[in-house]
Amino acid sequence: MTFPSIEADPGGALAAALSALRERAPLVQCITNYVAMTPNANTLLAAGAAPAMIHAPEEAGDFAAVASALVVNIGTLSAEWVEGMRAAVAAARAGGKPWALDPVGYGATPYRTGVADALAALSPTLIRGNASEILGLSGASASGRGVDAGDAVEAAAEGARTLARRTGGVVAASGAVDYVTDEKRGAWIENGAPLMPKVTALGCSLTALCGGFLGAGVPPFEATVAGFAAFGLAGERAADGLAGPGRLLERLLDALYVMTPEDLAASARVRLE
Amino acid sequence: MTFPSIEADPGGALAAALSALRERAPLVQCITNYVAMTPNANTLLAAGAAPAMIHAPEEAGDFAAVASALVVNIGTLSAEWVEGMRAAVAAARAGGKPWALDPVGYGATPYRTGVADALAALSPTLIRGNASEILGLSGASASGRGVDAGDAVEAAAEGARTLARRTGGVVAASGAVDYVTDEKRGAWIENGAPLMPKVTALGCSLTALCGGFLGAGVPPFEATVAGFAAFGLAGERAADGLAGPGRLLERLLDALYVMTPEDLAASARVRLE
Amino acid sequence: MTFPSIEADPGGALAAALSALRERAPLVQCITNYVAMTPNANTLLAAGAAPAMIHAPEEAGDFAAVASALVVNIGTLSAEWVEGMRAAVAAARAGGKPWALDPVGYGATPYRTGVADALAALSPTLIRGNASEILGLSGASASGRGVDAGDAVEAAAEGARTLARRTGGVVAASGAVDYVTDEKRGAWIENGAPLMPKVTALGCSLTALCGGFLGAGVPPFEATVAGFAAFGLAGERAADGLAGPGRLLERLLDALYVMTPEDLAASARVRLE
Repeated sequence: MTFPSIEADPGGALAAALSALRERAPLVQCITNYVAMTPNANTLLAAGAAPAMIHAPEEAGDFAAVASALVVNIGTLSAEWVEGMRAAVAAARAGGKPWALDPVGYGATPYRTGVADALAALSPTLIRGNASEILGLSGASASGRGVDAGDAVEAAAEGARTLARRTGGVVAASGAVDYVTDEKRGAWIENGAPLMPKVTALGCSLTALCGGFLGAGVPPFEATVAGFAAFGLAGERAADGLAGPGRLLERLLDALYVMTPEDLAASARVRLE
Repeated sequence: MTFPSIEADPGGALAAALSALRERAPLVQCITNYVAMTPNANTLLAAGAAPAMIHAPEEAGDFAAVASALVVNIGTLSAEWVEGMRAAVAAARAGGKPWALDPVGYGATPYRTGVADALAALSPTLIRGNASEILGLSGASASGRGVDAGDAVEAAAEGARTLARRTGGVVAASGAVDYVTDEKRGAWIENGAPLMPKVTALGCSLTALCGGFLGAGVPPFEATVAGFAAFGLAGERAADGLAGPGRLLERLLDALYVMTPEDLAASARVRLE
Repeated sequence: MTFPSIEADPGGALAAALSALRERAPLVQCITNYVAMTPNANTLLAAGAAPAMIHAPEEAGDFAAVASALVVNIGTLSAEWVEGMRAAVAAARAGGKPWALDPVGYGATPYRTGVADALAALSPTLIRGNASEILGLSGASASGRGVDAGDAVEAAAEGARTLARRTGGVVAASGAVDYVTDEKRGAWIENGAPLMPKVTALGCSLTALCGGFLGAGVPPFEATVAGFAAFGLAGERAADGLAGPGRLLERLLDALYVMTPEDLAASARVRLE
């Protein structure tokens, strides 16, 4: 399967990415936080991937060797889990498998910062965070307070590019408008809804979904843009008409489940730099 | 309370099982995976049982001694949790309490396989898995890749009987059609819906529900058939008219909650061998 | 911001509490059980607070020093988590931050009892449990069996006062009618719905919500009464017309999200002693 680049054919690139996810149903290993476990698994299932939550040091590496992609999220990290993350990342890298890092709460504590920095040094295919987390990881000062973003995505674009240059991978910052870059290219994604931050673990679920696109063999920049566009589009459709956040996730899952490649290509609002 | 056998009176056996679950509201200890924690607890509550998630080696055995049944699910296992599982199983066995094993992802890694084999050797009252997991545990070769079944249930029936002979308990394989056996008897359950595998942890929740029926004092074969029939019936009612998986679990919980013994007896589609 | 006392101005106290929660959006650190992780985070988000689930001994204390409040829930405790709980409580106390204890399953095992007793000795700003848990912690004999209350709240009022005298904080017992006391004052809250115990982790989510009010700077007695009244009111509105528990939480989240301070003041059913 060959994939058009998003510059050459934006709609075609997004449609091809979702088609690949559906056809290949990639097995995505998630080492994620306790809050995000169930939503992440349901997001991957609804989109067409197969999630597996496997974290123990005794098996995380063995499993990463057979999975199609790995997602590492440090939301509720602990020493033993970090050991499992390292084993899985090592196996993913050894096997040439893509892996994504979600540096939840970067900067909130010295321990968390140290773990995130060490993981970011292992050449993640994708780093996805909010603007504060991306700014912090890039080395700029940030104003987050653990889990919510104190910074606008626009202010994080330069930091994202700096970080992408350092990792050699894709870096993406989520917010009212999202930014994805591989240093040389940049894309702004305008899908989404203001209600989304009122539901926990949606950012983590977006990272997991990007892991699904990566696991389907989509090139990293296109995979990430497709993940953001599909998730944002599902979110805005889910939020339409809602008075509160209670039903947002279930409707987002439904919107992902019924989304067609053509639909994504037609309704994504992606602006290339 | 005496229970009719399912061969003598299929509808009566199912109705008696659900009546017992409602009247006794058994306390079911679940040592389960992080993804399944909340859905499993809600499934047991909706059905009429009382869940308790208690896993630490320091207390898992003490609690198993007072619970009515134990459910052990290895989905997100780790060394410390395995220690808790072993303590709980030992106490359940010492107290003559029924216990169920869910060998999630059997065969995915050597560690997981080893843990599952060791637990399966401790005479579980019930082993519930998908066809690949049951085939793998039985010693036959299987084609699963961790959490989804690569094999049809029909192909796992002989393996299930082999495994039941070895454990002395009931073995059940879930799929489009389910199979339950205690080696001598076998039952095929045709309730369920194709949308169910698109929601995470439903298989784990089915195992937990079977633990509820076991904890209510229902004989193991009848308890398992009742658990499968009730869960499948609730699932097919829940899926009716849905375009996506988002609301499946909440509707399944409602369907379990309002299900009457007579209703289960009338609508279960159980075919005895 | 000054807060009226609930005796002087019941409606004003409740309205001021909810206004403060919305305006300050306090960062609430939750060290909670695996079942309650996602519901607790969503409850805090819907109400207007910012949740962070951070438990590792390596960082729990550092984070408690920057959070506005701490909630410690022992539902799925283990040795490593208890170490994190202790570090976080020490930092919260050192920083003069309010902290709440949820002694889930008090009395179910010796280990759990010992951990809860040790935490209760650290002067929690609030202890919130069911009647059996509160009775047990107070030293009276209780009839719970781990996670559900075997005792009526009315029978736990004296125990709650005894416990409040010992801790110097607020103690609250949940049930069909709830009781909140700081030893000298007592309040009965009559909001709620019979369907609520059929959904897992709602008690834990109530404790988390009280942590949100504490983190907003509301005085502890008023914060707790406001938390109970807001949660109970959201729960009764959510349960209205439901045939089963499946949609209760999502509707409760929506009811919390749209609740105004005036609405809470007008619809809370609080009876002061």
